[in-house]
Amino acid sequence: MEEWLIAPISALISILVAVYLYYFVKRQEAGTKKMQEIADAIKEGANAFLKREYKTLAIVVVIIAVLLGIFVPEPIWITETKIKNISLALAYVFGSLSSALAGYFGMDVALKANVRTANAARKGLNKAFPISFRGGAVMGLSVVGLALLGISIVYGITRDPEIVLGYSIGASTLTLFAKAGGGIYTKTADVSADLVGKVELGIPEDDPRNPAVIADNVGDNVGDVAGMGADLFDSYVACVMAAMLLAVGLIPETSPMENPYVNLALIFAALGIIASVLGVAVVRVGKKGDPGKALNRGTYVTCFLFGALTLVTIMHLQLDLKIWGATAVGLVAGVIIGITSDYYTSINRPPVRMTAEASKTGAAINILTGFSYGLISVFPPLLGIGIASALAYFLCEGISAGFGVYGVGMSALGMLSIVATIVAGDAYGPIGDNAKGIAEQSGLGEEVIRITDKLDAAGNTTKAISKGFAIGAAGLTALALLATYHKIASAHAELIGKTVSFDLMNPLVMLGVFIGIAVPCLFSALCMLAVSKNSSVMIEEIRRQFREIPGLREGKEGVKPDYASCVDIATKAALEALLPLIAMSILITLAVGFICGISALAGYLAGSIFSGFMLAILMANSGGMWDNAKKYIEDGKFGGKGSDAHKAAVIGDTVGDPFKDTAGPSLNTLVTVISQIASLLAPLIITYALIGL
Amino acid sequence: MEEWLIAPISALISILVAVYLYYFVKRQEAGTKKMQEIADAIKEGANAFLKREYKTLAIVVVIIAVLLGIFVPEPIWITETKIKNISLALAYVFGSLSSALAGYFGMDVALKANVRTANAARKGLNKAFPISFRGGAVMGLSVVGLALLGISIVYGITRDPEIVLGYSIGASTLTLFAKAGGGIYTKTADVSADLVGKVELGIPEDDPRNPAVIADNVGDNVGDVAGMGADLFDSYVACVMAAMLLAVGLIPETSPMENPYVNLALIFAALGIIASVLGVAVVRVGKKGDPGKALNRGTYVTCFLFGALTLVTIMHLQLDLKIWGATAVGLVAGVIIGITSDYYTSINRPPVRMTAEASKTGAAINILTGFSYGLISVFPPLLGIGIASALAYFLCEGISAGFGVYGVGMSALGMLSIVATIVAGDAYGPIGDNAKGIAEQSGLGEEVIRITDKLDAAGNTTKAISKGFAIGAAGLTALALLATYHKIASAHAELIGKTVSFDLMNPLVMLGVFIGIAVPCLFSALCMLAVSKNSSVMIEEIRRQFREIPGLREGKEGVKPDYASCVDIATKAALEALLPLIAMSILITLAVGFICGISALAGYLAGSIFSGFMLAILMANSGGMWDNAKKYIEDGKFGGKGSDAHKAAVIGDTVGDPFKDTAGPSLNTLVTVISQIASLLAPLIITYALIGL
Repeated sequence: MEEWLIAPISALISILVAVYLYYFVKRQEAGTKKMQEIADAIKEGANAFLKREYKTLAIVVVIIAVLLGIFVPEPIWITETKIKNISLALAYVFGSLSSALAGYFGMDVALKANVRTANAARKGLNKAFPISFRGGAVMGLSVVGLALLGISIVYGITRDPEIVLGYSIGASTLTLFAKAGGGIYTKTADVSADLVGKVELGIPEDDPRNPAVIADNVGDNVGDVAGMGADLFDSYVACVMAAMLLAVGLIPETSPMENPYVNLALIFAALGIIASVLGVAVVRVGKKGDPGKALNRGTYVTCFLFGALTLVTIMHLQLDLKIWGATAVGLVAGVIIGITSDYYTSINRPPVRMTAEASKTGAAINILTGFSYGLISVFPPLLGIGIASALAYFLCEGISAGFGVYGVGMSALGMLSIVATIVAGDAYGPIGDNAKGIAEQSGLGEEVIRITDKLDAAGNTTKAISKGFAIGAAGLTALALLATYHKIASAHAELIGKTVSFDLMNPLVMLGVFIGIAVPCLFSALCMLAVSKNSSVMIEEIRRQFREIPGLREGKEGVKPDYASCVDIATKAALEALLPLIAMSILITLAVGFICGISALAGYLAGSIFSGFMLAILMANSGGMWDNAKKYIEDGKFGGKGSDAHKAAVIGDTVGDPFKDTAGPSLNTLVTVISQIASLLAPLIITYALIGL
Repeated sequence: MEEWLIAPISALISILVAVYLYYFVKRQEAGTKKMQEIADAIKEGANAFLKREYKTLAIVVVIIAVLLGIFVPEPIWITETKIKNISLALAYVFGSLSSALAGYFGMDVALKANVRTANAARKGLNKAFPISFRGGAVMGLSVVGLALLGISIVYGITRDPEIVLGYSIGASTLTLFAKAGGGIYTKTADVSADLVGKVELGIPEDDPRNPAVIADNVGDNVGDVAGMGADLFDSYVACVMAAMLLAVGLIPETSPMENPYVNLALIFAALGIIASVLGVAVVRVGKKGDPGKALNRGTYVTCFLFGALTLVTIMHLQLDLKIWGATAVGLVAGVIIGITSDYYTSINRPPVRMTAEASKTGAAINILTGFSYGLISVFPPLLGIGIASALAYFLCEGISAGFGVYGVGMSALGMLSIVATIVAGDAYGPIGDNAKGIAEQSGLGEEVIRITDKLDAAGNTTKAISKGFAIGAAGLTALALLATYHKIASAHAELIGKTVSFDLMNPLVMLGVFIGIAVPCLFSALCMLAVSKNSSVMIEEIRRQFREIPGLREGKEGVKPDYASCVDIATKAALEALLPLIAMSILITLAVGFICGISALAGYLAGSIFSGFMLAILMANSGGMWDNAKKYIEDGKFGGKGSDAHKAAVIGDTVGDPFKDTAGPSLNTLVTVISQIASLLAPLIITYALIGL
């Protein structure tokens, strides 16, 4: 049963293709001296931030690793398998390193692709598009390649899916902080740059006079690119790991390595990578082509190939076709959720247009309208996830005991299998956005900006779809992780004659749910408060520079703002906010587990999924709506730029920025981290909890 | 076992005291001709709205009653107890009539108390305070009096707690629409009046030149007073009913009338009324006294008396003291939740002040800050409810089977027992607010306005506390209703060999939870969209009047705006929005039950409690925060009135208006309605659901 080796092989293929595309991007001309100067400034800021962020995180990772080594799965002084403690700690460190590497690699290529895309745009859309898209593809392929390679290495050495859990937690903790930290960084800079630049002074976005403009561009890279890469890395690892763990024991008295269902999770993941590599290859655009269509074609080809490859494989392996059905359900649900989320954030649809129209009566009505449609947009994905998981469960339930939840895990895997293509299209967005920024700052002229605009616009649509996809995948993965917790906790509880309750009529479960509901609220509040608090500081700094640097406002030749001070404020903002976030999310989880016990922790996980999922969708979609409502007005509707409606829409957009790019996207990861920590600690909690029910 | 007759007796006492206080208020002088004119205009608008609203609702009530009579608890053509169907339908109509009456009665006295308070304020605070407070007390005492009298009548005639459920649903459906309709009405008028008056033209609040001013004052009465009265009427009835139903069968083979625990619910409710009558009596304020302190004294006296009376009673009845403990837990939790919710909305505390300070950097940061603190404020009440229900459960669990959930029901009752005092203090708020409005419009001078301001400010604090209290009570009541559903559904399912699952590892339960989470989102979105859509219409109308009526803007003698057109727009807004709200909340519930079955419906109820509760707290508290942040700036901080910070804070306040007064407060009722309908339909669903699991 060594079929699973297709996993490391296709992971390596994926990494090789990524390296090839990386050199393709690097080979392109980097443009004029001025453009390279700007690109260097962004790169410098981004690297400085990542260096400081990773330094802080390294300490956290080491502390957690040591604690894991000492206490998990059993305290090292009483356990008989000390090697397992050490393996877990090492896998944890390895997971966080891999996640950091994926983020860094993606960001590095994005920084290179930005300026080269801007340069190529001078020669036309069909020259610029491949650079930006391949830049995104490097990110997508390296994320899944590194992820699956990491899983394969850990699994190949230890042959124990529980150690893979350690690897996955390592990836998740790093992601949580990369995502939240990057999100706080990017929006502190973005909000401040907009409020002073656009609202107070009326200078255009990305104007080089604005002292926050470099910080803003840095933010796009550390937040949107590196953060998002780490995010999908983490969902992907968690979901493959969950499917493997849910497969353990499906065939009684079989070791994981001989269990075809454990291997199937790895094999399907590998097929997803192969489908993605081919899907990425078909994304091309002609001289007058439509980048949006090209990107969607890539997605559909990947889906189709994945469906076909997995079907052939499962027949060849002579496993139950129902499992393939569950995987397909996940894939289809992902596409449907992506499309509905596009409906709510597309500039061509009623929600955005109504929000734009509401701006005519002021900022308050704009905000109320966008927020309301955001609330409405929660319904389709919730329904989609609910139906997909129920379908997957009931499809596989009949095979044998335990297959129902395995089906849920495989449907999550189905949804995430095409993640490389999704990331490619998603990372493409900020690259186009940054190219536009560089084009504006280096004065490349109207025509070039028009082309980068077109790239940017296509990026916005794919971003909405892929965001919906990521949310759906995270939702199904969270359910799979909940099932994993149930499985692990029940197995350990049984050993000492206890049971784990998930019953809502159990008041401890209900208490757990109530606390769990509050945690995503607290988490997103702390993220947003960090943005709003630090924006105030940065706004004062920007105002000070315009006041005190003579000639800056008028754009006098040779007068430059002090970009570094804004970069510094954003960096501090992000790093200072991280510690309370780390502490809160881990400590509350430990408190609920060790005080209220294993059933309360079950409720707590469920509660955090409920409110985390709801808030994530609400924030992502209302934020996207406000953003596009502003763009719709800027296209000349309801008075166009500079009108009162536009001013109102800019306020809405500013509220939406931390919604959609700071708080919203971190919530998925928060839920993943919490669920995995709970699974890992379940044995300890069963033994040591204060309330032992 | 006729001790329960203390319930109708104390209900009658409560009503008599209310009538006495009503005549006390009516006896007072109604002020100058101009004041009476204004008061008459408000009264006319309010009555016109209620008349149209009740007409619409009457049709809905009759339709639902007929459907209930035909189908529930069993289709009338197969049931052997046709009388039960008919009783249920009649109890339903009776419940909705009682709720309507309580709302109307409270509003009537509020309208009288407004103008009389304004008039008495000319003679000093100690003359004005008793009128406004006693006006509120009429509302509080008539709400609980009518509620408990209604329950007693239905119970006395039918001796069947299930028919009381019909009465309770009648009250709840009416409340839902009174609350949502009134909320939409009041905020459409308020937002429009503020946006044109304060923001565009810079004229003060309640300025008689503003065409929306009468609609705004009408809104305070139909939304805040009548709506809130109906709201607590409904929570109170639902909670007494739930405790009674949870008591049924606690002593095997005993009819409800002989079951001391059924009677205990009624007796404790009666003792709550007696404590409230006495608590109301001690609220007095001297010439230089502090109205806020006086109101709080009333609350504490009521709590203490209730605790003492129930303790003596339970010892006298020789029932288990643990049940008293559960009741006390609810009462204490209510007070704690009230105090923490005060922390987040009080003008003297950091959250409001930070939100006010954030206004310095613009509306977007103000909104982000207030929203973030609103998210944080979700934590204490969720934790409080979770702990209170778990404590109550574990306290009583040991008595015998079924006592755990009965304990939860009794703790909800404990929290709601003092509701008359709470309503009195709460209804006092809008009376003071309206008195201030009348004083401004009739030009009573600075000193009188200062006194009404002082009444208003005390009202704002008690309002925050009582809102927290109402939310906590609704949360515990919702849990009790969930337990009621569990009990009824399980009992019926058992008859045909099925079970009802509340287990989160059951995918149908999870599907239900996911859909349930979405419903409060949809509901509050539709409410807020109605406000924002209709505000746009009303704003156009106000602008038109200022443009077309010569001399209006300058305030020329004898020039009056067309108040009636704004009243009409607000009325239409509310009535048009009601039908989709009715349809959606009932139809989704029916769809989940009859398609996905009884366990999915269990999850659905739980999901709607989770997100409904979370959104209700978030919206109530962030709305209150924005409101007070604006007031804090108006007190001269951060530049005071007219500064940029003030303008930003006004935008925040306008966003908060429909949060805290339209969407937020309706959610409790929505959850109550859904839970009760589910309980009532459980037998039908078990028999006829498509998926019979």
